[in-house]
Amino acid sequence: MSKTIGVLGGGQLGKMLFEAGSPNNVNYIFLENTSECPAALVCKNQVHGNLQDNTKINELAQIADVLTYEIEHVNVQALANLEKEGKLVLPRPSVLSIIQDKGLQKEYYANNGVATLDFALATIKNLSDKVAAWPEDRFVLKHRKGGYDGKGVQLLTKEKFAALLAAQDNSLNSEHGYVIEKLANKAIEVSVIVAVAQDGSTSTYPPCEMVFDPRSNLMDYLIAPSSLSEETNAACESLALQAVKGFDSAGLFAVELFVEANGGVYVNEIAPRPHNSGHHTIESSYTSQYEQLNRILLGQPLGSTALVKPAATCNIVGPQDVNGAYELANLDKVLSIEGVYIHMYGKTTTSPDRKLGHFTVLADTREAVVEKMEKVKRLLEVVGV
Amino acid sequence: MSKTIGVLGGGQLGKMLFEAGSPNNVNYIFLENTSECPAALVCKNQVHGNLQDNTKINELAQIADVLTYEIEHVNVQALANLEKEGKLVLPRPSVLSIIQDKGLQKEYYANNGVATLDFALATIKNLSDKVAAWPEDRFVLKHRKGGYDGKGVQLLTKEKFAALLAAQDNSLNSEHGYVIEKLANKAIEVSVIVAVAQDGSTSTYPPCEMVFDPRSNLMDYLIAPSSLSEETNAACESLALQAVKGFDSAGLFAVELFVEANGGVYVNEIAPRPHNSGHHTIESSYTSQYEQLNRILLGQPLGSTALVKPAATCNIVGPQDVNGAYELANLDKVLSIEGVYIHMYGKTTTSPDRKLGHFTVLADTREAVVEKMEKVKRLLEVVGV
Repeated sequence: MSKTIGVLGGGQLGKMLFEAGSPNNVNYIFLENTSECPAALVCKNQVHGNLQDNTKINELAQIADVLTYEIEHVNVQALANLEKEGKLVLPRPSVLSIIQDKGLQKEYYANNGVATLDFALATIKNLSDKVAAWPEDRFVLKHRKGGYDGKGVQLLTKEKFAALLAAQDNSLNSEHGYVIEKLANKAIEVSVIVAVAQDGSTSTYPPCEMVFDPRSNLMDYLIAPSSLSEETNAACESLALQAVKGFDSAGLFAVELFVEANGGVYVNEIAPRPHNSGHHTIESSYTSQYEQLNRILLGQPLGSTALVKPAATCNIVGPQDVNGAYELANLDKVLSIEGVYIHMYGKTTTSPDRKLGHFTVLADTREAVVEKMEKVKRLLEVVGV
Repeated sequence: MSKTIGVLGGGQLGKMLFEAGSPNNVNYIFLENTSECPAALVCKNQVHGNLQDNTKINELAQIADVLTYEIEHVNVQALANLEKEGKLVLPRPSVLSIIQDKGLQKEYYANNGVATLDFALATIKNLSDKVAAWPEDRFVLKHRKGGYDGKGVQLLTKEKFAALLAAQDNSLNSEHGYVIEKLANKAIEVSVIVAVAQDGSTSTYPPCEMVFDPRSNLMDYLIAPSSLSEETNAACESLALQAVKGFDSAGLFAVELFVEANGGVYVNEIAPRPHNSGHHTIESSYTSQYEQLNRILLGQPLGSTALVKPAATCNIVGPQDVNGAYELANLDKVLSIEGVYIHMYGKTTTSPDRKLGHFTVLADTREAVVEKMEKVKRLLEVVGV
């Protein structure tokens, strides 16, 4: 009766996708090499195998009516071949090819007239020359491939670059080349999740703002609605929509944007899947990003992306000094606060910086959201047991 | 690390309980005799067996830290024995003994000073006399045991009763006796879900009103908030709380109440488990009834019962003329409406009056909720395939 969705990857995004489809008994099968993965906590159907394994991906395709992926590091050629044979793969493998390579991503924006920060591509051979020719002293250096969660991305000066080069520093090793990118000017970072249905209809979620810790410069939390004006929010949604149009593909896309103090809006990068910046939609929105992706994969109409309540999401991350089994301290105190939702990813052990889960808070105003979130952050602690 | 919840019954209530615990990876195990049950769609852990089977219930208890039930028709003696041996069973087996017998229920209310409609108990031997002595011509006759979803309950006049008796009608067969009950006077029916935590703290959900079809007199939909005044709502919550106090047990209780036109409020009956009248809380409330029960079972603090948005729930029921495989007609049209949530219970075949699922609608006002729900009801159709 119902279609089967094959998902490459069995991480927390896969688990939350399953949870969103559970009330309607959507049928899933995950490809993941371990039974210990988050998705396996809820889904009985799994193909055991590596996300690069052509044979295993084909095995998944045999059982599934439609394929998707919850992580970018998958065998895109295998998916492209399947698409050629008529299998529905969403977002399309051609999108993934672009996304997997930050150089192609930047060229895609440039070729499609999508505002993005100035950039130059470089290879290992011409990197020094390209950096020397770069018009500003400070710049961002990104590996074209393989980066994840900020890895392979560094903010440099020409002097710092020269020092790394002289030291033959590992952080400069990138076999697939580099993107040299202009530094955003005092920018606010937001994310707009764009949904494109199989019939071509589209919708965007209200921009979600990433708030950074001024000390560590690491992302602190995500909050919706953003602090931007209505006009700028609309510009963000419009640019995000434009950014995915050229993909010519149905799917769910998280478009990260820089909004400069002067009002300039630029696409930073796109994830072709559910995203951290949409976790809050599970509780805050008429349709969660996961429910939306399910609808897209099943060929159903898109749901309303309207926000019901202001919300913020914060990752629950392994602290520096704990390794192994853990628990959440002060859980009862946190659960006593109205509108706090904890999602754990089923990881039985922690290690420094490991993403163990997230929590979302709801409140009536943006200010009340921030206050509640700060309170929960102070209370909720990952401690060893 | 985490506790295991053993659930007697693997129906839709069990499935939704699992879904509520999924974000936190709450560990469940269900007792149910078939692998085709709704809970098995999401939960990997099942003891196969009958809900009356002492051995199987003991097997479940061996694995679980706490036991609960999602249906009343279970072996209460087995649970009572387990409680005596120190196993935590919530709500307590003594509650279930009262609930399973409508006669004991009525006596419990009377003994605890809980307002309930006048009644008399009868046996098969003295039923005629008791009916003859009943002060009003119209009355409700209930079987003390075994009734479910309105079965074993009839509205009678003395003349109608005499006719049934003369005809030796099956509907009068009740080996456990009868409750003769006063008819509520033009009453509105509401339900208040009461949560009692293990530490004794309590909270109540806002009354949910049951709206009946004036033609068929069958329940049409459930809506929160109710149409009652703030004062009457408060009286309902207060009576509901009082009604479960005498149980001396943690648990989640759905207290059905009659509110008469003159303002009188009476307890009708109590279900010691999640209830139809709380389905809407999944989408409408800070804490769903299922999440609340999970918290109770795990010994956590209660969550906020506040309503975030007005909501209504309507059952999706098998029509009279369809048997076997089915699908939902106009599903895409329904999914295009903002704030509509469909829950299907994973039943692969329909039969007349079979409860296949439910839908909940959210909107900004009670009026908008009713309008949206009527629209969905007109569109969504169970059709044979």
